[in-house]
Amino acid sequence: MSLVLAVDAGGTSTRAVVLDETGRATGYGRAGGGNPLSSGIEVAAESLGTAVGDALASAEVDPSRIGSTTIAMAGAATHLPADDPRNRAIAEALGRCGVDTGFALRSDLLAMFCAGTFALDGYALVAGTGAAAIRVRGGQTEHVVDGMGWLLGDAGSGFSIGHAVIRAVVADIDGRGAATPMTAAVLASLGLDDVVDRSTGTEAPRPPVLHRLVDDLYAMRPVRMARFAPFAFTFPDDPTARQIVDAATAALAATISAAVDPEVDGPLVLGGSVLLRQEQVASTVAEAWRAQGRTGPTVLVDEGTAGAAVLALRDGGVSVDSEVFARLSGSLAGLR
Amino acid sequence: MSLVLAVDAGGTSTRAVVLDETGRATGYGRAGGGNPLSSGIEVAAESLGTAVGDALASAEVDPSRIGSTTIAMAGAATHLPADDPRNRAIAEALGRCGVDTGFALRSDLLAMFCAGTFALDGYALVAGTGAAAIRVRGGQTEHVVDGMGWLLGDAGSGFSIGHAVIRAVVADIDGRGAATPMTAAVLASLGLDDVVDRSTGTEAPRPPVLHRLVDDLYAMRPVRMARFAPFAFTFPDDPTARQIVDAATAALAATISAAVDPEVDGPLVLGGSVLLRQEQVASTVAEAWRAQGRTGPTVLVDEGTAGAAVLALRDGGVSVDSEVFARLSGSLAGLR
Repeated sequence: MSLVLAVDAGGTSTRAVVLDETGRATGYGRAGGGNPLSSGIEVAAESLGTAVGDALASAEVDPSRIGSTTIAMAGAATHLPADDPRNRAIAEALGRCGVDTGFALRSDLLAMFCAGTFALDGYALVAGTGAAAIRVRGGQTEHVVDGMGWLLGDAGSGFSIGHAVIRAVVADIDGRGAATPMTAAVLASLGLDDVVDRSTGTEAPRPPVLHRLVDDLYAMRPVRMARFAPFAFTFPDDPTARQIVDAATAALAATISAAVDPEVDGPLVLGGSVLLRQEQVASTVAEAWRAQGRTGPTVLVDEGTAGAAVLALRDGGVSVDSEVFARLSGSLAGLR
Repeated sequence: MSLVLAVDAGGTSTRAVVLDETGRATGYGRAGGGNPLSSGIEVAAESLGTAVGDALASAEVDPSRIGSTTIAMAGAATHLPADDPRNRAIAEALGRCGVDTGFALRSDLLAMFCAGTFALDGYALVAGTGAAAIRVRGGQTEHVVDGMGWLLGDAGSGFSIGHAVIRAVVADIDGRGAATPMTAAVLASLGLDDVVDRSTGTEAPRPPVLHRLVDDLYAMRPVRMARFAPFAFTFPDDPTARQIVDAATAALAATISAAVDPEVDGPLVLGGSVLLRQEQVASTVAEAWRAQGRTGPTVLVDEGTAGAAVLALRDGGVSVDSEVFARLSGSLAGLR
């Protein structure tokens, strides 16, 4: 009996699963960031090799028994031309593990959807560092909304919230924005809470703490502003924080609403830290989706590995029904 | 009689002026971007050398007659340690022109203020690609508000407006934002108005034009989003555009208001394309400043060369009064 290999290659971790044709997960491996776009080709290929090698070893199977390989990965990477160096690096990393099946690249958003349901139609909204919604029909992504990255979109994402937090904090210290308790929290998180002097004069026409804060923040990559998102949820009574959360929630509601097609019903799968850790945001977003006439259930998922496995099984010719999905979910949970 | 050399080193152009002790400009030169932070050290040094060389040549003076040199430059560059490679590159470029006076670095914001007035107290608000306000007392910058750069501040700047425009256009095409006439204008400005197909499906779950637009925009440096700012002013009847302009105007009003100290009166100098080309924005901002009890006049300036000259004269020991300021402004205008 032939086996399938599924990989969920995310920005911060890569997970690999070996499955048999009944959907049972028999091996699991995990390594660091596996998306060539965010981690670079070499690191991504190394993570992939480690995760796949560990999955094969824990399954105790000969790599030659793998009949097909499916890799779920964020957006752009799924449109790579065949001769792209990233594709070659992936093929080589698999080859070093003894896997020479070739591989199918699938969208990480579709994997998130499939991690929550075996239904072939439905919707997913993911709001982690980025934010995007998809409409799924017949097991395929039919329409994507947002996921346009930190500069042009990702409305309501962890980045957008963290960015708004840090801009509000800078404006507070600068005296042109409202005072907010987020300022003390952000300064403490950066070890700058000892710099309390906010006086200015001809020798130093800006508060010293502002110089330190701005230098520290520009030394980070812009997407790292997402780390400040939690502070928006820490102070629900602060008008500035509440406005940031409300704006993000409205943006996510607009994103999922724009994904709806009256002909497509099915579940709504929600993923990503902004939705998983903020019941209020998730329920408001689900409400907006139901206001578009949707009647399916809402499912929260914390990552896409099970969905990558569903896609791998389908790519390997297995029909994933309730029984297979239950076996997959249960056996995978047992391995982690 | 000793002469002074003034340089206004901006992100897109560098201007140099030779002045005598009466404030008369006798030589003028102009070259490309001269800020090492935005143009790189080599290009900046070359621009500086060209502008200074041309100014000396047109003044027909021996470089040894220059008694002091003052360079106005954007924010961070004025805090350079003496042994910074940028400082060495500037000194070397001056040396190649035969100028070995050493040089004083002054803030570009203070130069903008001094381009509009010879008063020693007052305020300036500059909103071009970036945005910042200063309070000036005794000829020195006493307090700076904003100027925190595109990621953390520059509220109400050309970047902030252009960024909001492009996000609104992406959201429009994406179906999660309101339709806006700015979309057609932006697409035409990028040569993408022939890509009209907005249908999606499992083969291409995003509109093709959105892929093209996003690829084009991410290929630019973020600050280049400022080029889309004018479209916000092109459609005053579009609610999306109006909201962007209103938000920027309110942000600039907050910035200048935060600069006010009850003890400091004097003129308000306004500069930068957002204020110069939008009478409505400039008047609303000036109104907010007057609402803080300020009584001085409002002056619009289009660049800081005359102000760099004022600072250079003062650094050279000349007291700049109404007569000197008039001679400087008139003679400089005659040379350009």
